[in-house]
Amino acid sequence: MNNERTEISSLGEFGLIEHLTKNIELQNISSVLGVGDDAAIIDHSGKQTVVTTDLLLEGVHFDLSYTPLRHLGYKSVIANLSDIYAMNAVPTQITVSIGISNRFSLESLDEFYEGVYTACEKYGVDLVGGDTTSSQKGFIISVTAIGEVAPDKFVKRSTAQKDDLLCVSGFLGSAYVGLLFLEREKKIFMESPGVQPDLEGEAFVIGKLLKPEARKDIVEFFETQGIVPTSMIDISDGLSSEILHICRQSNLGCVLYEEKIPVAEEMKKAAFKFEIDPTACALSGGEDYELLFTIPQSDYDKLVLHEGISVVGYMTDPEQGARIITKGGGKHPITAQGWNHLSP
Amino acid sequence: MNNERTEISSLGEFGLIEHLTKNIELQNISSVLGVGDDAAIIDHSGKQTVVTTDLLLEGVHFDLSYTPLRHLGYKSVIANLSDIYAMNAVPTQITVSIGISNRFSLESLDEFYEGVYTACEKYGVDLVGGDTTSSQKGFIISVTAIGEVAPDKFVKRSTAQKDDLLCVSGFLGSAYVGLLFLEREKKIFMESPGVQPDLEGEAFVIGKLLKPEARKDIVEFFETQGIVPTSMIDISDGLSSEILHICRQSNLGCVLYEEKIPVAEEMKKAAFKFEIDPTACALSGGEDYELLFTIPQSDYDKLVLHEGISVVGYMTDPEQGARIITKGGGKHPITAQGWNHLSP
Repeated sequence: MNNERTEISSLGEFGLIEHLTKNIELQNISSVLGVGDDAAIIDHSGKQTVVTTDLLLEGVHFDLSYTPLRHLGYKSVIANLSDIYAMNAVPTQITVSIGISNRFSLESLDEFYEGVYTACEKYGVDLVGGDTTSSQKGFIISVTAIGEVAPDKFVKRSTAQKDDLLCVSGFLGSAYVGLLFLEREKKIFMESPGVQPDLEGEAFVIGKLLKPEARKDIVEFFETQGIVPTSMIDISDGLSSEILHICRQSNLGCVLYEEKIPVAEEMKKAAFKFEIDPTACALSGGEDYELLFTIPQSDYDKLVLHEGISVVGYMTDPEQGARIITKGGGKHPITAQGWNHLSP
Repeated sequence: MNNERTEISSLGEFGLIEHLTKNIELQNISSVLGVGDDAAIIDHSGKQTVVTTDLLLEGVHFDLSYTPLRHLGYKSVIANLSDIYAMNAVPTQITVSIGISNRFSLESLDEFYEGVYTACEKYGVDLVGGDTTSSQKGFIISVTAIGEVAPDKFVKRSTAQKDDLLCVSGFLGSAYVGLLFLEREKKIFMESPGVQPDLEGEAFVIGKLLKPEARKDIVEFFETQGIVPTSMIDISDGLSSEILHICRQSNLGCVLYEEKIPVAEEMKKAAFKFEIDPTACALSGGEDYELLFTIPQSDYDKLVLHEGISVVGYMTDPEQGARIITKGGGKHPITAQGWNHLSP
C-alpha cells in the first residue's frame, strides 16, 4: 500500500504517458512498433488479425468501493482477452485508454497499470497504445485487444451443427455469488461503518469476481488435440444468454441438462447462504469468462482428456427450441434474463 | 430533423446493436468478419496492421450544445483516420464504442451513427465492432482505427534527418478560430437566450472545426509520386507541439519560418475579429488534422506538384534547438502551449 499522493497534473499529459509506459518491453515478434507514435504497427505475417473492444464505466461496470484498482486493471484486460480466445485465437496486443478525474493520484493510476501489466505478462500480450484524458466524473476504461489466428482457424458463433455436443470450461456462477457478498458487505458498511466485513471463507467466489482468468489453456488444449470447435463464445453474460446466441446465430435448438452444469462446491455453499439456487447463478450470473463451445460427437474421445471441460448438452433442430432439462426431469425453454436482472 | 423520440431501453442491448449495425456492407477484402461475434477478423495478407485509438468525452472533448451529433460521429472517426494516415498507411476498419445516458433517444443515436457511416463510406473503412453501454453521465465515445501498410513503408516520428524539409498540408489554425466563435455564441446564448447566433460569414472556420477531413489525398499523392516522408505526425494539438514531437523523437532541431505557415484568408479575417494573431492560432490551435512531415531536399521537385503542401522550414542539428523565425526577422524558441491553454 502506497500512501504518497502525487497529483497527475504535475506530470502533464506526455509526462504521464511516459511514466505509465516507460517499462514496456515488447514480447511479441508481431509488435513492430508500440507506444509513442500516432499508431502502433503489428505484423501478423501469414495469420489473420482478431480485434475486440470493451468500454468499462465506473458505477456501471465496476464499483471502486470494493474493487482494488490493481484487480480492475487486470480484469479489464482479461475481459478482452477472453473474447479473443473465444474466436480460437491467440491475443498478441492490447491498447488501453483511460479517462480519469482529479480525485485519482498518480499512485492509484500506477496500481491500475500494475494490474494491466501483470495480465500482459501472464498472457504474453504487449501494450502498444491507448489514450489518456481527464474526465469530469468517474473512471472510464476502454480496452481493445488484438490477436492472431491461422487463416480459417477462427471459430464463429454461427457455425454449430445439429447433434454437436454443447460444452463449457470451468465452473459457472461463482463471480456472481462473489458480487452478492461484496454488495451485501458494502450495504452493511454504508449503514454501520464500524462493522468489520464478514467475507470469511468466501475467498473462492470473491476471487472469481475480482481476479478472473481467461481460458488460454483451453485454446491451447484444442491446438494440441487438433480440435476445432464448430462454434464458440465466451460466457460473460451468463450461460443462458450465451447458449441462446449460439442457437439463434447457428439457427439451431439445443438440450441443456441442469445436472451437467458445472458449479463449484464453494459456490454452492455460498449461494445457499443467500438462499438462491446455484443453477440460477450459473444460468444468469455474469463475468465468468469461461468458454461455451460445440464440437462434433466424433471429437468426444479427445475432449475427455481435459477434466476442466464439461459436456452439458447437445444441439438440435431449430424447431425443438432451446430447452433445459431440470434435475427433476422437467423441460423448460431457456430464457435469458441477463445477469443484471438476477435478484436473490 | 427527426422529432420522434424512441427510448433506447425499448430495444434492449442486442436490439440496439442490431438496429445500429443492420445496414453495414463490408467494403474491404481485409474485413473477413465484422460485427456480431466475440471479435472481428481482419486479413491484411502481406501487409502490416496499424492500430490507433481515441477516447472522447462530453464536456472535455466536445460540447453538445453546439456540436450536431451527425458531425460528432463524423469527426470521431476522422480524428482516428488521421492518425492512420500519419503513419503513411491506409485505414481499413474501425470499432466504435459508446456510453450513453438515458437522455439520448434512439433518433439522436441514429444521427451520431449517420455521421460515423458517412465517414466510413467516404474513407472506405468498415465498422467491424464496438461496445454499447449505458453511462451515468455524459456521452462517451471510444474509437479504434485499424489500417494497413506495406512492410517497412510506415513512417514514424523519430526518423527525420538533418537538412530535411519540414512540410505541412492544408491551412492551419482554422478549427481553433471556429471554436472561438461557437464558444462566444454559446456564452451570449446562456446570458440572453433570445439573441440569434451571429455566425454569418464564418462557415469556413466553423466547418473546419465541426466537419474536419483527414488527409487521405496527401498519402495517396505520396504513393503516386514515390515519396516516402522521413517522418510524419498529424496536427491535432497545434503546429508547435507536433514540431517539438518530431524534433525530440528524431533528436534534431529545426528552423520554422513564420511567413511560410499556411493560414487561410477566411481564418485571418476571423482571427482579427477576436484581435488575435493568426500565427498564434496556427501554432497552438488544435484539431486541424493536417499532416506535418519531413522529406529529403532531393524530393522537393516532386513536392511542388501539390499546391496544398507548404514547405515551412528545415531540420537542423539538435544543438540549434527548435526555433521560429518571425516575419520581423526575430528568432525565438518554439514552445508548446497546447491548444487548450491558448486564450484570445
